[in-house]
Amino acid sequence: MINYPTTKKIAHQKDSFSNRGMSLEKELNLSNEYYLRQGIANIHKKPTPIQVVQVSYPKRQAAKIIEAYYQKPSTTDYNGLYQGKYIDFEAKETKHKNKFIYTNIHTHQREHLQSIIELKGIAFFIIRFSCYNETYLIEATIILESINNNEKSISYAKIKEVGYLIKENYRPRLDYLRIVDIIINKE
Amino acid sequence: MINYPTTKKIAHQKDSFSNRGMSLEKELNLSNEYYLRQGIANIHKKPTPIQVVQVSYPKRQAAKIIEAYYQKPSTTDYNGLYQGKYIDFEAKETKHKNKFIYTNIHTHQREHLQSIIELKGIAFFIIRFSCYNETYLIEATIILESINNNEKSISYAKIKEVGYLIKENYRPRLDYLRIVDIIINKE
Repeated sequence: MINYPTTKKIAHQKDSFSNRGMSLEKELNLSNEYYLRQGIANIHKKPTPIQVVQVSYPKRQAAKIIEAYYQKPSTTDYNGLYQGKYIDFEAKETKHKNKFIYTNIHTHQREHLQSIIELKGIAFFIIRFSCYNETYLIEATIILESINNNEKSISYAKIKEVGYLIKENYRPRLDYLRIVDIIINKE
Repeated sequence: MINYPTTKKIAHQKDSFSNRGMSLEKELNLSNEYYLRQGIANIHKKPTPIQVVQVSYPKRQAAKIIEAYYQKPSTTDYNGLYQGKYIDFEAKETKHKNKFIYTNIHTHQREHLQSIIELKGIAFFIIRFSCYNETYLIEATIILESINNNEKSISYAKIKEVGYLIKENYRPRLDYLRIVDIIINKE
């Protein structure tokens, strides 16, 4: 059997989340929209970097990209402004029950977070354990120190100990800035 | 004559800038790389938002995007961290000799900059007059006030008066953070 290349239409987010729990990304975007509308914070997810190779210009229509590739991001996914402070974080979901594995944290992202810490920004991870539907905020220093100690993962128990459980509400969906308040007040 | 749709390969930046002055974007990216390497600041251009419609998955190759469209950005192009402060700006080049026209500043971007100012971030424009090869930093408050007064443009003379000329160096190419220092010290 010949393996033909397959193509796939990207589903609209509305459809794909209608019948199950929302993805962490979706919930964070909703929370950030709420914070923005209320004048509390201005935090956005960065667009995925895409390398555009070929563009078609059909007459009287928008430019159509016909060849492009996903690129690895050189920074984290989210950044913005809250309480006059620079906020920077990466959000990850895991299906594991007892640990969060570092495989998907790229070198570039680690270096980026290290630089943010040195420049006095507020850097953290938001990690969701989907099996428990629990979402934690953990300061980036803790994860980076663990990675620098050649650890490959952080246990669920450790996250419960050193991280902060984020409350799920109606508005905002994930009130992670309440945790950021705690971090700011510690400083 | 039938107007066939045209297609265009995107040139590599190296080629397109080899024989003439660098674009403002290229110079800002080089400056930001310098600031980052020196541990001075962490400021990045955000990727252009692209709506991906269809992706092909050829066997043993990277996912290939075969239908996608450019989207209007909802924020400015650049943001980051300097001196513990949140930095946010939009960069524009103009070919006009005596004014900078506001046409290309989208409503979303104005609202975004307004929000950044209210949340105590540092918001500005970097505007290059390519005919003079002069690049100015102007605080966002000045441009937003002018737009709110229904003005359609700001004159070159006014920019010289209220803005700051950015020095061109070897490293960093455009030392715009020297101007940000002045703004921070005014606060």
